Amino acid sequence: MQQALGELVVETRGRGFHEVTSRIAGWVRETGIGSGLCTLLLQHTSASLLIQENADPDVRTDFETFLAGLVPDGHPDFIHTAEGPDDMSAHIRATLTGVHLGVPVRDGRLALGTWQGIYLWEHRTRPHTRRIALHLIGERSA
Amino acid sequence: MQQALGELVVETRGRGFHEVTSRIAGWVRETGIGSGLCTLLLQHTSASLLIQENADPDVRTDFETFLAGLVPDGHPDFIHTAEGPDDMSAHIRATLTGVHLGVPVRDGRLALGTWQGIYLWEHRTRPHTRRIALHLIGERSA
Amino acid sequence: MQQALGELVVETRGRGFHEVTSRIAGWVRETGIGSGLCTLLLQHTSASLLIQENADPDVRTDFETFLAGLVPDGHPDFIHTAEGPDDMSAHIRATLTGVHLGVPVRDGRLALGTWQGIYLWEHRTRPHTRRIALHLIGERSA
Repeated sequence: MQQALGELVVETRGRGFHEVTSRIAGWVRETGIGSGLCTLLLQHTSASLLIQENADPDVRTDFETFLAGLVPDGHPDFIHTAEGPDDMSAHIRATLTGVHLGVPVRDGRLALGTWQGIYLWEHRTRPHTRRIALHLIGERSA
Repeated sequence: MQQALGELVVETRGRGFHEVTSRIAGWVRETGIGSGLCTLLLQHTSASLLIQENADPDVRTDFETFLAGLVPDGHPDFIHTAEGPDDMSAHIRATLTGVHLGVPVRDGRLALGTWQGIYLWEHRTRPHTRRIALHLIGERSA
Repeated sequence: MQQALGELVVETRGRGFHEVTSRIAGWVRETGIGSGLCTLLLQHTSASLLIQENADPDVRTDFETFLAGLVPDGHPDFIHTAEGPDDMSAHIRATLTGVHLGVPVRDGRLALGTWQGIYLWEHRTRPHTRRIALHLIGERSA
């Protein structure tokens, strides 16, 4: 049994989805661990890390539409407003959609479903540098 | 230290909760690993995997009531509509309630609380075949 | 490779956030495992365990404001009401914000971002005794 620690840096372009599946799969391959568990933790509180459909991009558009309605920017009752109208809404969006994932690894690949992709969802309107802490534990061969 | 990989297939009966606690506990027992960490990943984007109360079934009824109001089927602003009015709402319900879990294993048993059960929540109105990828790492005896 | 199992007991003061970061970091240090993966599972269905900003306490106030509006206590359509108006809302708040976390450990420390803290969020209005099951797997030195 062995383990590997890593980090993925993502430069976001402002609010929206950034797919990271292939970069994470590449890191898993580089470790040489073919069977095990891969854990991802996004080290920020105003962006999220989630699994969603990787086929029709309309799904991501509808997610933005829905969340913008559910957690309005500039909500009149919020008091944490010093960093702008998208700051507190970004914190809430991050908590509702999550910042960590655990994905089994089989035959050297992430055991995702056919239509699943891993996305970093930036909730701030301006671009940010985001870091994902990676951990993998397992064995070289299954 | 050793690990095991597995899969659980659940045939859902359409929208609603399907408890999987005992099937997962059975798989853990079969592996012979008595102490460790069990990770579950649902390989779909329109159903979810969550821990909730296993006592009063009214809790699950109220969850359905609440989510149906929060994420309406056939939302007029959604554009991902080709697969029916329950498709995009199912994706959003899945992301808000999660698709993966990590549960410590102690003395051969899942370290759940007294009132906790593990549920697959089908969000599509029609029955589906759903797969949960399983991973367990640990030791034979504590 | 080695592992450790533990438990953290938190006495809550009723609805609100209770930071547990330093207690969990202390437990990790005591195990002597300096590099690995720490998993936390809250063994309850009416409180949650989440990562959020640890700087401005206004963030937590706004979270309370938002969730109280999103999931009203005493919702007229709920039927699980025997334990009071805050019971069913607490279950839903718990599921929307999560009950488990996986955090990589590097150089003996939780690999959290600068502004991230781990919180137990009590959703019931009365104080409760809450238990978090802990699991850590890894190596003594990185």
